[in-house]
Amino acid sequence: MKNILITGFEPFGGEAVNPSWELAHALGGEVIADTRVVALQLPCVFGVALSTLDEALVRVRPALVLAVGQAGGRCDLSLERVAINVDDARIPDNAGAQPVDEPVVPDGPAAYFSTLPIKAMVAALRTAGYPASVSQTAGTFVCNHVFYGLQHRLAGQGVPSGFMHIPYLPQQAAQHPGAASLPLETLVAATRLALHTALTQNEIRMGAGQLD
Amino acid sequence: MKNILITGFEPFGGEAVNPSWELAHALGGEVIADTRVVALQLPCVFGVALSTLDEALVRVRPALVLAVGQAGGRCDLSLERVAINVDDARIPDNAGAQPVDEPVVPDGPAAYFSTLPIKAMVAALRTAGYPASVSQTAGTFVCNHVFYGLQHRLAGQGVPSGFMHIPYLPQQAAQHPGAASLPLETLVAATRLALHTALTQNEIRMGAGQLD
Amino acid sequence: MKNILITGFEPFGGEAVNPSWELAHALGGEVIADTRVVALQLPCVFGVALSTLDEALVRVRPALVLAVGQAGGRCDLSLERVAINVDDARIPDNAGAQPVDEPVVPDGPAAYFSTLPIKAMVAALRTAGYPASVSQTAGTFVCNHVFYGLQHRLAGQGVPSGFMHIPYLPQQAAQHPGAASLPLETLVAATRLALHTALTQNEIRMGAGQLD
Amino acid sequence: MKNILITGFEPFGGEAVNPSWELAHALGGEVIADTRVVALQLPCVFGVALSTLDEALVRVRPALVLAVGQAGGRCDLSLERVAINVDDARIPDNAGAQPVDEPVVPDGPAAYFSTLPIKAMVAALRTAGYPASVSQTAGTFVCNHVFYGLQHRLAGQGVPSGFMHIPYLPQQAAQHPGAASLPLETLVAATRLALHTALTQNEIRMGAGQLD
Repeated sequence: MKNILITGFEPFGGEAVNPSWELAHALGGEVIADTRVVALQLPCVFGVALSTLDEALVRVRPALVLAVGQAGGRCDLSLERVAINVDDARIPDNAGAQPVDEPVVPDGPAAYFSTLPIKAMVAALRTAGYPASVSQTAGTFVCNHVFYGLQHRLAGQGVPSGFMHIPYLPQQAAQHPGAASLPLETLVAATRLALHTALTQNEIRMGAGQLD
Repeated sequence: MKNILITGFEPFGGEAVNPSWELAHALGGEVIADTRVVALQLPCVFGVALSTLDEALVRVRPALVLAVGQAGGRCDLSLERVAINVDDARIPDNAGAQPVDEPVVPDGPAAYFSTLPIKAMVAALRTAGYPASVSQTAGTFVCNHVFYGLQHRLAGQGVPSGFMHIPYLPQQAAQHPGAASLPLETLVAATRLALHTALTQNEIRMGAGQLD
Repeated sequence: MKNILITGFEPFGGEAVNPSWELAHALGGEVIADTRVVALQLPCVFGVALSTLDEALVRVRPALVLAVGQAGGRCDLSLERVAINVDDARIPDNAGAQPVDEPVVPDGPAAYFSTLPIKAMVAALRTAGYPASVSQTAGTFVCNHVFYGLQHRLAGQGVPSGFMHIPYLPQQAAQHPGAASLPLETLVAATRLALHTALTQNEIRMGAGQLD
Repeated sequence: MKNILITGFEPFGGEAVNPSWELAHALGGEVIADTRVVALQLPCVFGVALSTLDEALVRVRPALVLAVGQAGGRCDLSLERVAINVDDARIPDNAGAQPVDEPVVPDGPAAYFSTLPIKAMVAALRTAGYPASVSQTAGTFVCNHVFYGLQHRLAGQGVPSGFMHIPYLPQQAAQHPGAASLPLETLVAATRLALHTALTQNEIRMGAGQLD
């Protein structure tokens, strides 16, 4: 049986939980479209996050990779279109590093597009009643760092991969008045559908994929 | 057994559902703190909404009233502090009326405060992990109209009453990119807790109540 | 010659300036529609702000009063519709006081409406190309405190009075990424027009005024 | 004397003016740091905008290029970091074209970074009291199209170039309640300073430039 790799991050920025890991953990072990979901937690640390990912890519040999991160303040499941070759941190990562305007991969290209069918995934989510959108920026913190590194490692290998940002959980938003949130059950059901769409999409290179 | 009256609105503004009625309907028939929940749907129509409410107040003789309305764009359960004596509609109501700067009750006072323990309810919700806040304005559409009319009718009768705005459901937000949402399950669990808090609050006149 | 009284606040919340006082100070001494503008700075202190205002009302005997305050985050000139009888501070005032759910005036009515022609003022501003709107809440800090106290003192005296919130100045927004701003020149020209509209409005009781 | 080329767009989306062209036009003919400013209006049309730009690049032989566009809803001068190789229009351009997920330049790289010293420009603006920020996305409409095309044409030529988004003018915001704005005078003064900073910046490749 083929594997999907889904990654989530450990908590950061003073939060007690990270919805991306709660989501990945909840889906780990499920079988979606005859494909097993393998969950991986990544540290919220520049560099170490990518070496952790590297090890898992070798071990799991996934047919598809979805990296997930928390985007406090966003209101929906945001399928990221593009990863850029910049680390530019406004707060320190969990190891205290705070790179400014450094490349993720020296001499790497300026950007990589998602190779997931992000438009089809958003359309499927909305049709099923889940708020979702295509996002044009994954920021310049560890989320974008992992997204760029993932796309760089898998470039040309025919393994669809990409990144999705998700909102706070309600218990986090309870501490951040004015911030949107979605409960874990909603995130899990929506992501299950998004992964199913990505796995069964005939025109897997639809959406931004054609641009690579 | 005593009764709580919880009201929700029919859909308006082109929406297929109104989360406030879904919420009221879901709680109807439950018993919370030895009190039975009676659900009432209100038309989204100036005037008729209040005559519908009047009939129910006589019939149900509630020990507590919570009116609920949809606030597209808000991200949490918003306990309203104050109802003002103004109908000022930017869109027509469901009967086509669009009053501008008219009083809800001619010669009524400029405003009424909620007589629910709104600060205690918000605190209980946040502690339990539900996003909630006190709101300083219920707007000037049918929500505020019902809130003002409710407080006017119950003034001085010792029956705690007030208004809560809630976000879109996810299926609505799927059609309104950028808007926050919470699923019905979350709204039901949170409102059950809020009602329990209101019913068991010893200092029922805490919060804005002391100002009346 | 008749007088207009326009008030602005001293800086608070760590800011070096308060655009409301810069605005009031800039207009002080001007003659608008045969009426002299008298500017008054108010301390950002519960209670003392109102006693300062009281003294000026006796001394200036204004024909119209516009109190102005800073609303960091708002993007336009916001004509406030209603003042509520609540002091509920999230941060201490400039004297360190932080009242919670206290009345501005014990036994005062729940609210007062603006007696300025706020709809006509907004319409005139928009027609002239200035962003403006009617706001339904002046908050529960010193701004609302002054607004409520002003309306309470002038109730029934036939002197139009009200409150306007204004955005940050650009130099403040330069320190608050994501916050809107308008330069002083724009605020002065817009407010001059708004005051002219209020002074020359034949139907002075248009807008919310009819509700009093 | 060397030339700066500054471009602005014609109005689009139903607006009567485009602040980007008002800004470019106002600066045209000025001399900043011994460099003459040449203003160019671009049509808001995919393809034609770039052929218009091409002609001007040949004719003007600029030492620096700043393309400017309107970003309705933003509150500050946003120096864009990166242009991506995507045309994905939510509304038709001024010629009725609405490309979806097409490349700006077939077989072009996924992205180009700005070669302007965007961090230094933002720092200079903020120090002088103008709201400014680095933005991570120029969208996927004609603004990004021009930005990507510009960077593609000048790649490796040693001519610093980039894109800046600016807010609505106040007269536009007067028709879009809730939208931020800045008057032309503020935009002109701020952009003059930003261009001066870019021209005199010793480490011209600071900021994202080092990543190319």
